Amino acid sequence: MKLLRFGPAGRERPGLVDGSGRVRDISRVTPDLSGEILDSELLARLYHQDPAAFPIVDNPGRIGPCVGGIGKIVAVGLNYADHAAESGMAAPTEPILFMKSTSSLIGPNDPVPMPTGSSKLDWEIELGVVIGRRARNVGEADALDHVSGYCIVNDVSERAWQLDRLGQWVKGKSADGFCPIGPWLVTKDEIPDPQNLAMTLDVDGRRRQSGNTRTMVFGVAFLVSYISRFMTLEPGDLIATGTPPGVGMGQKPPVYLAPGNIMRLEIAGLGSQSQQVVS
Amino acid sequence: MKLLRFGPAGRERPGLVDGSGRVRDISRVTPDLSGEILDSELLARLYHQDPAAFPIVDNPGRIGPCVGGIGKIVAVGLNYADHAAESGMAAPTEPILFMKSTSSLIGPNDPVPMPTGSSKLDWEIELGVVIGRRARNVGEADALDHVSGYCIVNDVSERAWQLDRLGQWVKGKSADGFCPIGPWLVTKDEIPDPQNLAMTLDVDGRRRQSGNTRTMVFGVAFLVSYISRFMTLEPGDLIATGTPPGVGMGQKPPVYLAPGNIMRLEIAGLGSQSQQVVS
Repeated sequence: MKLLRFGPAGRERPGLVDGSGRVRDISRVTPDLSGEILDSELLARLYHQDPAAFPIVDNPGRIGPCVGGIGKIVAVGLNYADHAAESGMAAPTEPILFMKSTSSLIGPNDPVPMPTGSSKLDWEIELGVVIGRRARNVGEADALDHVSGYCIVNDVSERAWQLDRLGQWVKGKSADGFCPIGPWLVTKDEIPDPQNLAMTLDVDGRRRQSGNTRTMVFGVAFLVSYISRFMTLEPGDLIATGTPPGVGMGQKPPVYLAPGNIMRLEIAGLGSQSQQVVS
Repeated sequence: MKLLRFGPAGRERPGLVDGSGRVRDISRVTPDLSGEILDSELLARLYHQDPAAFPIVDNPGRIGPCVGGIGKIVAVGLNYADHAAESGMAAPTEPILFMKSTSSLIGPNDPVPMPTGSSKLDWEIELGVVIGRRARNVGEADALDHVSGYCIVNDVSERAWQLDRLGQWVKGKSADGFCPIGPWLVTKDEIPDPQNLAMTLDVDGRRRQSGNTRTMVFGVAFLVSYISRFMTLEPGDLIATGTPPGVGMGQKPPVYLAPGNIMRLEIAGLGSQSQQVVS
């Protein structure tokens, strides 16, 4: 099932995409796609309804972030061995965790404002994992029971702030617009193997990133289990699982974003998103 | 004005402490102490009401976190020069920022569970700054206009997870119970100089931390301005401004917490809090 939120920022309504690609309004059954409703068993009740029971939205307009009320964004650093190499860092022996500010969230096709003082604005396509059920000290074998579904994440980064401004990556990961997600939350039943998803990112039509989740250092189930040992994952929390090679910082010479540039991201089964950088 | 939230976890009601120290229920004017209501101008309307207009709560019971719906917790590392020295690190030339998980928030006197696998559980008394009005690229001179008030924060930390477990401090800062706040949100009109507040932390009655916010490397106004360049601060966001010397890691030899230990924290004008470590 492909779920989405549509409408003006801050006033999105929940919907689903039916078999014909039309958006249907599901606000009759839930006011938002957030919190407890993201549990797979509750979503399964939606799944078993006939989509035709929900009204078609002729003109959904803007698509918002595919999950509302996200409590935290836990991101995983250097989780593709070849991306670590291009960053000049060793592949980690256990997951590196950092956070992105929840105020950085935007819809999948919203513009990304280049922040004041930014000089090294970069892109990172990532598989996003949305938590559906509270996870605390869960084992790897049970970890996917706590996952609601998947989405595309662009882990937009300001490299000077992340790496040159004294300590802790969050500083370069959290500006407004630095976390486009969506277009859809694709429930996990549609993604039987999250470790075999092709992913690409283009900037102004030029292929920059090309990868597959099969080359992750740590897979989704391990990550959910691992993170849940250090903090409780709540329904609606988002995990950004790291990026494959091809970020701007890794180009020879490095290439950074400027106003006018258009990023386009695609992950197999999760749709595509596109953002223009604006000043 | 001293504001608080009282009642069972997740179902707290908003209140204020009147001149006689009694709790009065203010849920008639706001459903919670969160978001936009934290703006100083809105709070001033409360301030100008006669507290006697609000019903006395004879038995408020548990005190919860003094702010609800906190969107993010931005913490500042090594912000007291002598604490940096005891940690074996240089005092920073600009603020080090990291995040704590919002799922780590608890009330000021709630027990702190020692997480599974924890071996180096430590304390950190900090001045907490609660944002009342959105702050994005604000100057230092205007920064305090965006502050709602202050509270005590215990930035509970697992040092092995923070420092020995490969990268990014958030990993040791985010377990359940790692962020007791309160008892009160004290509005800024009661704290004319946030850079002159004595603070102490005792463990089992023994003084461990003793400091004053006047020895911060970067003061509150600078921090709000600085952080607002890297991310937008929203009403209800919390800044933990760093800790003075005396953390467990800095003792000779280091001292860490074990189940049964009781921490007691006090900051001049902000009240006191006390937590027992439990297994």
